[in-house]
Amino acid sequence: MSVPYEETQLYKIRHSLAHIMAEAMLERFPDAQIAIGPPIEDGFYYDFLLPQSPTEEDLKWVEKRMKKIIAGNHAFIRKEVTPEEARAQFANQKFKLELIDDLVNGRVNEMGEEIAAPASTITFYTQSKFTDLCRGPHVNNTKEINPDAFSITFKPIAGAYWRGDENREQLTRIYGTAWETPEELADYLHRLEEARKRDHRVVGERLGLFVIDPLVGKGLPLWKPKGAILRDTLERWLRQVQIDNGYSPVVTPHIGKLDLYKTSGHYPYYKDSQYTPIQVDDEEFLLKPMNCPHHCMIYKSEMRSYRDLPLRLAEFGTVYRYEQSGELHGLTRVRGFTVDDAHLYVTPSQLLGEFISVVKLIQYVFSSLGLTDFRARVGIRDPKSEKYVGDDQLWEQATNAIIQACQELGLPHTVEEGEAAFYGPKLDFIFRDALKREWQLGTVQVDYNLPQRFELEYVDENNTRQRPIMIHRAPFGSMERFIGIIIEHFAGEFPAWLAPIQVMLIPVADTHNDYAYQVVAELKKYGFRAQVDAGKGRMQKKIRDAREDYIPYMCIVGDRDIENGTVSVRLRTDEDLGAMPLADFIALLNRVVAEKALELK
Amino acid sequence: MSVPYEETQLYKIRHSLAHIMAEAMLERFPDAQIAIGPPIEDGFYYDFLLPQSPTEEDLKWVEKRMKKIIAGNHAFIRKEVTPEEARAQFANQKFKLELIDDLVNGRVNEMGEEIAAPASTITFYTQSKFTDLCRGPHVNNTKEINPDAFSITFKPIAGAYWRGDENREQLTRIYGTAWETPEELADYLHRLEEARKRDHRVVGERLGLFVIDPLVGKGLPLWKPKGAILRDTLERWLRQVQIDNGYSPVVTPHIGKLDLYKTSGHYPYYKDSQYTPIQVDDEEFLLKPMNCPHHCMIYKSEMRSYRDLPLRLAEFGTVYRYEQSGELHGLTRVRGFTVDDAHLYVTPSQLLGEFISVVKLIQYVFSSLGLTDFRARVGIRDPKSEKYVGDDQLWEQATNAIIQACQELGLPHTVEEGEAAFYGPKLDFIFRDALKREWQLGTVQVDYNLPQRFELEYVDENNTRQRPIMIHRAPFGSMERFIGIIIEHFAGEFPAWLAPIQVMLIPVADTHNDYAYQVVAELKKYGFRAQVDAGKGRMQKKIRDAREDYIPYMCIVGDRDIENGTVSVRLRTDEDLGAMPLADFIALLNRVVAEKALELK
Repeated sequence: MSVPYEETQLYKIRHSLAHIMAEAMLERFPDAQIAIGPPIEDGFYYDFLLPQSPTEEDLKWVEKRMKKIIAGNHAFIRKEVTPEEARAQFANQKFKLELIDDLVNGRVNEMGEEIAAPASTITFYTQSKFTDLCRGPHVNNTKEINPDAFSITFKPIAGAYWRGDENREQLTRIYGTAWETPEELADYLHRLEEARKRDHRVVGERLGLFVIDPLVGKGLPLWKPKGAILRDTLERWLRQVQIDNGYSPVVTPHIGKLDLYKTSGHYPYYKDSQYTPIQVDDEEFLLKPMNCPHHCMIYKSEMRSYRDLPLRLAEFGTVYRYEQSGELHGLTRVRGFTVDDAHLYVTPSQLLGEFISVVKLIQYVFSSLGLTDFRARVGIRDPKSEKYVGDDQLWEQATNAIIQACQELGLPHTVEEGEAAFYGPKLDFIFRDALKREWQLGTVQVDYNLPQRFELEYVDENNTRQRPIMIHRAPFGSMERFIGIIIEHFAGEFPAWLAPIQVMLIPVADTHNDYAYQVVAELKKYGFRAQVDAGKGRMQKKIRDAREDYIPYMCIVGDRDIENGTVSVRLRTDEDLGAMPLADFIALLNRVVAEKALELK
Repeated sequence: MSVPYEETQLYKIRHSLAHIMAEAMLERFPDAQIAIGPPIEDGFYYDFLLPQSPTEEDLKWVEKRMKKIIAGNHAFIRKEVTPEEARAQFANQKFKLELIDDLVNGRVNEMGEEIAAPASTITFYTQSKFTDLCRGPHVNNTKEINPDAFSITFKPIAGAYWRGDENREQLTRIYGTAWETPEELADYLHRLEEARKRDHRVVGERLGLFVIDPLVGKGLPLWKPKGAILRDTLERWLRQVQIDNGYSPVVTPHIGKLDLYKTSGHYPYYKDSQYTPIQVDDEEFLLKPMNCPHHCMIYKSEMRSYRDLPLRLAEFGTVYRYEQSGELHGLTRVRGFTVDDAHLYVTPSQLLGEFISVVKLIQYVFSSLGLTDFRARVGIRDPKSEKYVGDDQLWEQATNAIIQACQELGLPHTVEEGEAAFYGPKLDFIFRDALKREWQLGTVQVDYNLPQRFELEYVDENNTRQRPIMIHRAPFGSMERFIGIIIEHFAGEFPAWLAPIQVMLIPVADTHNDYAYQVVAELKKYGFRAQVDAGKGRMQKKIRDAREDYIPYMCIVGDRDIENGTVSVRLRTDEDLGAMPLADFIALLNRVVAEKALELK
């Protein structure tokens, strides 16, 4: 896994397919101007200036033609030419001529990246009847490419301008995905389809979890009743886990004086991601971009002794940060989000122990949720950079504490230089979801900076004033983003303890409604979320509706259930557990919910 | 109780005492210039221009002299004089000459109130050797005044300028309190002292509940760990009561687009109490001044049927409103506060029933907290005003529903014209605390306006689109204000279920610490908030500390407790419950907490 993508066979296959696609396209559209065609994640693309938009039929023709070219077993031949030869080759391709000029004048290469020195020779790659200006690498021969392991698509998208410059020509981008085997392609297409089905924006709307309305504001989700249950259930559980681990919840306002953020250094450092200040009388206020300054003021509100430390202040604190509207995406990229935040104020000798406890708690939280596929990334200083604050010895001590914590806990981790915050090293948790997509979740950061800026102190055993160290940590990171991720991970089929409605009572006929309501009342006594579908619809329709709402348990109740005090339990997986005494069903639910089980029985 | 204060004997006594104080002051300070001396709530004052600040001794002398004047059984004699006679009488009193001019020229009277017409005669009142310019009324004779039922005080305060104009002379204001009997005076002074002791700002700081720091912002409380427990306990309990009553919690952001508030009409209508808009790209956002527009957008996010109603959306929603900094007061007058808000969307035929349920829930909430001394005020339209929106029939229907609800529930209420909101009639709850002070708490309001402005609809039984009616309601009103009030009501000695720390374990000696921690672990299993005072101090000191923190239960544990598995329980009232098996103590706690009992046993 440590080979860079650029050196893999897959990269070469994709890069070669881009050229093959260009060859086929030029056959279909002889007047096309060709731009560039790089490999990308999962595939490749090529940009063209075309006389008209390609049709479905054009694409089919091109894909078929590409297979034929592959079948020709053509070699990819590398050749170095002089700029003059290059210009002659591409006399009719204006974009290529521009690229040659840029290479020769030492400005940028064909990817638009700045280059160190002007190029005196130009590299060509040729396969079959097509030659492209290209650095490679490519496969040696088209026979290395499986003709049944790729496909191409065209989606008219805005903004595919030549060189990304909206004043230049608008181009047609044809995408392809390519793999080594047809099985891998099928798997990818399946994952793509799954990702589409699991899209949390779609699932969230269908299940009535949240809504984002332009009149309230972009990137500002409104949590509807079912989403609010999900959110509150997660929040209450994590809150209790934290209390059990010695954290103290606090509550702070959503605004703070600009001077507070000047003291913390968040302003003007993070100015671009903050909302503009609000003027109040002769003072200015900021919508809170983070919770730490407020927590520091709580720390500072009392004289602290070493006996008070570690002090662990926790808050589900909603913060607001500016994001460009084009960057916003459902719950995973928003403008207002709630951090499951905590700040630990510790003595130097407590740092390692507290760090270990924090990492343990995060491991516990993820594994309790059934999120077992995660790794950690230790972000340390870039030794060549000057941007970091704090003295070397403290950095070393903190970095060692983080790495030691990972080792002691057997947490898989990578160490990455330059990934530290400017105020201290950090540990990020990366989660792989059911579709093997990686998401960055929680973070733990060591901070020597804020205690200094806020002049935080405690009195030690010798009655001397000392400065505490701060640990910032958030297991989920953002409640909004985390819920977005688990909607996709579970595809909306939440474990029973998180499901907004856990049990739907479905009376066989109207005459069974009363019994259904009795069962619901009994279930509610145990804290379960249950409802009766007393609508006019037929039983089969009600079962279908409950299943479509991913309600874990359906209890179908009829005459025999009333006689025997039973419920007939059916799972959303369609498994039929049959009739069981209500007490047994309650025992089942109690166990599944208490265990936070992923299975329903 | 319906006699206006101005017509009571107490008013006359206080007014007369102001004159008597002026007489005594002029004897002590013959060069004093006298300004005005009106009766006020609980007493009276008189403003003087003095050559120097009065000393404690001066005040004692004056108070003694006043008693002597009272003992002289002087009549208060009313006399009408010409302006010339008046000027002659007050030739050396410049403020009085100014007052005479204003009266004669028809500008303002001696209270600074505009008068209808110039005065042709001036009224004097004379007692003993002192004459004042005055409209009265006064007692007939000083013997109507109990010489042991008043006292005077002087606190140097800023801004007691002549006529409240800071460009004029700064005056010395001497306050007095006066009552009909010495018992009433003693009672008043006791309440004053109690109010000082109970001041939630003082108690809140001493118990570590909250802090307001100017660097975060005026009127923006930070809830420290103990205050956050109190707040969360109240919130979770009310939340569950609401869920049990069919409410659905939702969560909405703390900002909204300006257009949202233009749609709701809150902007520019309530512009002065809102923070200025925040510019984001080409849009403007407001810090949320109320939760209703966001809830209306949740209502509107789905097509609603009559079967979905009533829809009861609830949120502990934090809102921000501008208050002048001079108006801010601890938790009871803040700039950011959390409303225990809910909005009910109902059909016209549901209005009465839902209104009754809402009032019942509020009654249940208050009485569960032991707040039994409350009344309601029905605010209806001023029939002469044009400011109200909505048609007459709807107003009548809603007003009748409110009054009928009060009657059916036997809720003591008064009906007050002109106290309605512009969009509908309302019901306010007024609570009398332990010191008999009245506080306005929750409110219930009927609203025909927002459903119309947001074009909210539902489909009725005949498949016709109809407009729902909204009920706004908040039992506490504001979490901050409510907690401020109950801090004062309970004087910080919260019932056990609300106490931030419920049990303090006090080991007799260090050797008993382990057992104390075992007991705490056991108590925590039952969800109780317990700690060990394992500090170095002596047992007696620890008991004193716990009592000063108003911790309901102290469990003192020594050798015999370890032997017998008992705890020796002492209440914060100093009552000693003696040693009892831990299980018995847990049973006691369970009962007291479950009952939300005000008593500790």
